[in-house]
Amino acid sequence: MDKPRVGLKDVARLAGVSVKTVSNVVNGYVHVTPATRTRVEAAIKELNYRPNLSARNLRQGRTGIIALAVPELDIPYFAELARLVVAAAEKHELTVLIDQTGGSREREQLVAEGFRAHLIDGLIFSPLALTSEELAARVDDTPMVLLGERVSAGTADHIVVDNVAAAKEATLHLASLGRRRIAAIGAQDFAAAETSRLRLAGYLAALEAAGLPSDDRLVVHVEAYHRADGARAMARLLDSGAAPDAVFCFNDLMALGALRTLLERGYSVPGQVALAGFDDIEDGRYGTPTLTTISPDKREIASRAVEFLADRMVKGSRVETREIRVPHELLIRESTGGQTRS
Amino acid sequence: MDKPRVGLKDVARLAGVSVKTVSNVVNGYVHVTPATRTRVEAAIKELNYRPNLSARNLRQGRTGIIALAVPELDIPYFAELARLVVAAAEKHELTVLIDQTGGSREREQLVAEGFRAHLIDGLIFSPLALTSEELAARVDDTPMVLLGERVSAGTADHIVVDNVAAAKEATLHLASLGRRRIAAIGAQDFAAAETSRLRLAGYLAALEAAGLPSDDRLVVHVEAYHRADGARAMARLLDSGAAPDAVFCFNDLMALGALRTLLERGYSVPGQVALAGFDDIEDGRYGTPTLTTISPDKREIASRAVEFLADRMVKGSRVETREIRVPHELLIRESTGGQTRS
Repeated sequence: MDKPRVGLKDVARLAGVSVKTVSNVVNGYVHVTPATRTRVEAAIKELNYRPNLSARNLRQGRTGIIALAVPELDIPYFAELARLVVAAAEKHELTVLIDQTGGSREREQLVAEGFRAHLIDGLIFSPLALTSEELAARVDDTPMVLLGERVSAGTADHIVVDNVAAAKEATLHLASLGRRRIAAIGAQDFAAAETSRLRLAGYLAALEAAGLPSDDRLVVHVEAYHRADGARAMARLLDSGAAPDAVFCFNDLMALGALRTLLERGYSVPGQVALAGFDDIEDGRYGTPTLTTISPDKREIASRAVEFLADRMVKGSRVETREIRVPHELLIRESTGGQTRS
Repeated sequence: MDKPRVGLKDVARLAGVSVKTVSNVVNGYVHVTPATRTRVEAAIKELNYRPNLSARNLRQGRTGIIALAVPELDIPYFAELARLVVAAAEKHELTVLIDQTGGSREREQLVAEGFRAHLIDGLIFSPLALTSEELAARVDDTPMVLLGERVSAGTADHIVVDNVAAAKEATLHLASLGRRRIAAIGAQDFAAAETSRLRLAGYLAALEAAGLPSDDRLVVHVEAYHRADGARAMARLLDSGAAPDAVFCFNDLMALGALRTLLERGYSVPGQVALAGFDDIEDGRYGTPTLTTISPDKREIASRAVEFLADRMVKGSRVETREIRVPHELLIRESTGGQTRS
């Protein structure tokens, strides 16, 4: 289908540069001046030149594409992260192929095993279903950076948030308001549910530090982390007679669902029940009341992930695997009595 | 980087099938039984075989990848649409590369001109900045399906919602509640702002049909369609003394921003001001009050887009360009006095 009528030479002639320069632009190398790049791109456009990926690929083993594999794009946390990764990748002249795994084992295994490795130079992966052991057993050698809570597999660069500390901080904030029946929504039992386990550990540590007894009835399990799960969990919590006066939800989306249930049933928030979430998605800033939350530095997560990956793509496995923690902060908003808007 | 140690033959031997069958699986052809596909995929996995895109590409001119170019992934409408397009494409065994244009002219022009055409078999494009004329002037011949409100360029398949009818319906619903000062938030003036123009036309047609005078002070212009734009527009509307008793926002995201401003300033919704949006994003179902909205059939948009594109990829330009309208419905929720939840 692709008839390569127009070649590098034609572009070079029109742009008044060398074939090597056109090649540098086409291959996304950074050491080309903006003015030259603009001229070459104009010539490419005018001639409707299409670089021959096949030849290029064989020569260099590079596609200029990285994949970002996340569970679901309509979980706002991942949508916001995807936007930031696309922006960070642009600075490295990399195109991002976004892969939505749906959190399914099969799709995640395909991603980890490099099923599309011939298309991509590297992978930023936020796994949901795969365990650390499964990730460590990966044989594909495409450079990979892991995002999220998994205990490092030791075989890939890893970007994490301190989930235990953050969850503890959110729960202690609820205790500091004088709340004594603090519930947790978001417990999960399956093998790979590290996020849930770490946030639960932080919640329990906070109860202990605040001298509050833990009560199994206050810990609500969920299947997934959507609004509907939070809404249902909150209904179960209220129906159980556990009588919470505060709730820490393990993400904002569940907190927004829980908020809806509370208001629907006539509870005042934060008057009768104070509420905190995790992620700092935009929705939480515009709801009424606005949502207290843990805000991980998403911009930093995205830029470090791309940076690590770009570095790894150049240096291969000669660099030791690295793990970094990005900062987070507690944002106190109306759902726990704060007045700040952002 | 890619050392092709393992070949088609090795996979075929392990799976106990012919080389041709392995090739069919690798190339995503549909005429392979699920059982055979599973066996071949297991062998591919076990051997960590990577198909050689280059050779394949040269042979067939196919990559099995389609691009979905949308303005912004963290606008929930596009995130929801992306999820549905990924799901629809999976049924055609196509991988979706998601391209976030940011609504910028330059990025959209690159997309339209097929800058990455060597990587993709087809394109589903929701343009924001480019006009119909600019799209019609496209020289790249990669199969393309357009989404959204642009008047058809005549050169590409096109999937639309009847924006005028839908906006009229939403506005008439507000009028049917006895509201007489119905405002519109979302007017825009730039050349490519078709969405805005069509929804404004529907709003004005409804006022006329309801025998209500139009009032320029009730029409608020915005820069973009985010929550913050809606919040600011609502504040301007209230400050202007235009005294609206209902507001039709041209998308849900702005309506959620406007809702926040109204509640923050002590207005009751729908008591003093009734509110309707457009898009039916999930957030609107969980806010308090829940948001009345126009719900375009997003699943239908996604599946028809992929279907048109797959068809076009096979038949090329031999098929006449088609334009279809997908259905929409008005969902009456709490923000206009309705009680339904979905």
